Amino acid sequence: MNYRLVINLLGKILLIMAALMLPSLFIAIFGGEGDILAMLYSIIITAGAGSLMLFVKPKNTAFFAKEGFVLVALAWVSMSLLGALPFMFTGAFTNYIDAVFETASGFTTTGATVLNDIDGLPHGLGFWRCFIIFIGGMGVLVFVMAVLPLAKERSMHIMRAEVPGPSVGKLVAKAKNTALILYAIYLTLMLIETVLLLFGGMSAYKAITTAMSTAGTGGYMVTGLGLIGESAYCQTVCTVFMLIFAVNFNLYFYILIRKLGLVVRNEELRWFLGIYVLAVAVIVLNTASMYKGLGEAIHHAAFNAASIYSTTGFASMDFDQWPSLSKAVLLLLMLCGGCAGSTAGGIKTSRVMILSKNIRNEMRRLAHPKYVQTLKVDGRPVEDAVVRAVQVYFFAIIALVFASVLLISINGYDLTTNISAVFACIFNVGPGFNAVGPLCNYAHMSNLSKLVLTLDMLIGRLEIWPMLMLFVPSTWRRRAGFR
Amino acid sequence: MNYRLVINLLGKILLIMAALMLPSLFIAIFGGEGDILAMLYSIIITAGAGSLMLFVKPKNTAFFAKEGFVLVALAWVSMSLLGALPFMFTGAFTNYIDAVFETASGFTTTGATVLNDIDGLPHGLGFWRCFIIFIGGMGVLVFVMAVLPLAKERSMHIMRAEVPGPSVGKLVAKAKNTALILYAIYLTLMLIETVLLLFGGMSAYKAITTAMSTAGTGGYMVTGLGLIGESAYCQTVCTVFMLIFAVNFNLYFYILIRKLGLVVRNEELRWFLGIYVLAVAVIVLNTASMYKGLGEAIHHAAFNAASIYSTTGFASMDFDQWPSLSKAVLLLLMLCGGCAGSTAGGIKTSRVMILSKNIRNEMRRLAHPKYVQTLKVDGRPVEDAVVRAVQVYFFAIIALVFASVLLISINGYDLTTNISAVFACIFNVGPGFNAVGPLCNYAHMSNLSKLVLTLDMLIGRLEIWPMLMLFVPSTWRRRAGFR
Repeated sequence: MNYRLVINLLGKILLIMAALMLPSLFIAIFGGEGDILAMLYSIIITAGAGSLMLFVKPKNTAFFAKEGFVLVALAWVSMSLLGALPFMFTGAFTNYIDAVFETASGFTTTGATVLNDIDGLPHGLGFWRCFIIFIGGMGVLVFVMAVLPLAKERSMHIMRAEVPGPSVGKLVAKAKNTALILYAIYLTLMLIETVLLLFGGMSAYKAITTAMSTAGTGGYMVTGLGLIGESAYCQTVCTVFMLIFAVNFNLYFYILIRKLGLVVRNEELRWFLGIYVLAVAVIVLNTASMYKGLGEAIHHAAFNAASIYSTTGFASMDFDQWPSLSKAVLLLLMLCGGCAGSTAGGIKTSRVMILSKNIRNEMRRLAHPKYVQTLKVDGRPVEDAVVRAVQVYFFAIIALVFASVLLISINGYDLTTNISAVFACIFNVGPGFNAVGPLCNYAHMSNLSKLVLTLDMLIGRLEIWPMLMLFVPSTWRRRAGFR
Repeated sequence: MNYRLVINLLGKILLIMAALMLPSLFIAIFGGEGDILAMLYSIIITAGAGSLMLFVKPKNTAFFAKEGFVLVALAWVSMSLLGALPFMFTGAFTNYIDAVFETASGFTTTGATVLNDIDGLPHGLGFWRCFIIFIGGMGVLVFVMAVLPLAKERSMHIMRAEVPGPSVGKLVAKAKNTALILYAIYLTLMLIETVLLLFGGMSAYKAITTAMSTAGTGGYMVTGLGLIGESAYCQTVCTVFMLIFAVNFNLYFYILIRKLGLVVRNEELRWFLGIYVLAVAVIVLNTASMYKGLGEAIHHAAFNAASIYSTTGFASMDFDQWPSLSKAVLLLLMLCGGCAGSTAGGIKTSRVMILSKNIRNEMRRLAHPKYVQTLKVDGRPVEDAVVRAVQVYFFAIIALVFASVLLISINGYDLTTNISAVFACIFNVGPGFNAVGPLCNYAHMSNLSKLVLTLDMLIGRLEIWPMLMLFVPSTWRRRAGFR
């Protein structure tokens, strides 16, 4: 481990994070509700910590995969710890664990909340809560890469560790330019949604926070009831944009450079839309009798399926009241969770696709042991190493689900609550069923459960390995024997 | 596909199955309760069907992996369909789907029941119900191999398809002798348990059926309440034997030939015992306050954890009343399910071990991309093909769990019932929680759910591939283009 370089880079990240707190400070000043000092103190502490770390000068520039993983993991943990400060200084929380849960939930775009009084938050803090979703959605270090000059090799290691999905491809030769392009697309789409929501009669504050929350597929709102009771127009805008933000951003780049063929032929997109349409159809058939007409049934099925599949976590009604079948469909959508290279959580549709195709391959191999066929996606063979990594990842995430369910079972809630809470946090969705349903929150849980779920959100968002690296002793050796 | 050979072999299997019905006929005659004709008709129909199939003479002896899978799958389906006849002819069931569910549950050693009046069964049928667990436990085709002369290559393909676990090793050069040795060990252990239960004051009929049910890790009893209310001595005998039958039978062979070193160094056994002791400890801590003393808490924790981990499904008390944590532990034990090469269900402790070790390997690979290490079990490297197969199997079984939960959710039961029912059937355990808890049964479920769960039991017992082969069109082509 090149400690000095990692600490130095972490310092830069914290400085950028302090800068990212500035918009919330301005809104606090504009709102004049007493959260000005809270934001100011937070900025000073974050910037101070970052500056101190800059004094650690790296002795060499060795930066390998391990350093990439550790930097990303440490950055996300620090962000959660320091981003929680505004919640403490305003008095929104008195328990620091609550504040960290809420912040990690934001950065990881989970959107699970422990706040009982959301409507009472001052505007600066309310904005900060949704803004961290926007930042976390595309990746904080991807943002850092877009603004800071980084060595080429270094940036690839960071991208691999932070960008979700089974494999990472750069759009253009330079990682920095790739990051800039992605952020430009992201910001543009978010602004379009804001404008459309303004047309629906939302206030500017609510429209922009809702749009940021949709963009990051996070699911925080500045009002307690979220989108329940909102106009059908606004809900429909959100349905469309939740789906848009759950699609691989590379596809939007292809559209920009007029390579539509790549979009049409994209298998993950077809699986994503296919699964979505199927899920909506099943839910409509299953819930039709609960609504006045078929139109209303389709509207709510389309909204909530999009919300869960994109792992946003908005609700247009209390889907915990749906019958078992529809809730089982939602649980499955949580697991799948959007496309690789999007802001969605879950294990990603492309991994589900690779794993499913692999079953067919395995059956052929069993029936005809001499016959070998490589797995193909988009007509191109997938490297064995990628298939293997996807499989290990799948077992690891299911093992994490089981371990977490065990730990939060100590709380004594029923199995449905426990499983759905763990799914909702690991897969960065937000609401679950029963005691953590869309009309409830996580405030009633014990500190132990909150800590477990906070870790789950971080592990899930960074797709296991970076966070797990922190817990392996060999990571912390200065020089591993077998490098 | 060599249809003629498969049908011919299937005929022989059915004839042997008809012969296996004879003990039940004798007990029916001895009991004189009117189930004599029911057993007789079943034997005539089964033997008749088998004889007809023998008229199909194979034109060649080509028998490859595919034929092995298909034969095993067809044999298990036919056994479930024909073994259900005694239940119909005695009038124990009026719905054929119920009878098939009960029979498949027996053969697959699941032990999930749809019988509301178990105590009222005539002795011949009651014996048949437990006898199929005994036969199913070690594998019906393994039994066939022990009595019929089969070509060497043929028997390996059959063993691979039927014997549970990630890889199959023969104990001695000839597969037939391996099968004979395994059955001798199996029978001896079963008889020892019978004698011990007789010492506990059980009737001969009850002792031998209970021992057969323990040996197959099935969980059927000839009384409705099972082992609830039985003496602590009898329960303890069962605890010990449930664990014994969940261990790889190869180890008993090693003990017989005095190779104790192989037993002591066996990693799967250590994992198995380690997981068991840990599970019991957690349950004792979690449930201690429910009992009069620590001794009682340990007794029930040890019994029910052994029952679930060995996938037997006996209960010494209603464990559905345990708190969430203990129930989550049981759910995890269902998934793990005993050792490879035992009569237990589940994904097998050795697979859990391989998957877990693989996580460590993957992390090393991520941190040090140039570093390659093979995965080792018992000090020997595990082939990449085995690791890959274990990973594909894991995804396939989890996908099956999700698909089944979706389908039985149509019934409308709560998620805990649905998930535990699917776990209990796929992993061949028997009882689940809530509506399918140890004091309930599966009779109240819809025909669709019963069919899904019946298929789950068969797919789970045969570890996915043989049953899945039946649903792939290419299996049924006379000559595959790419062989």
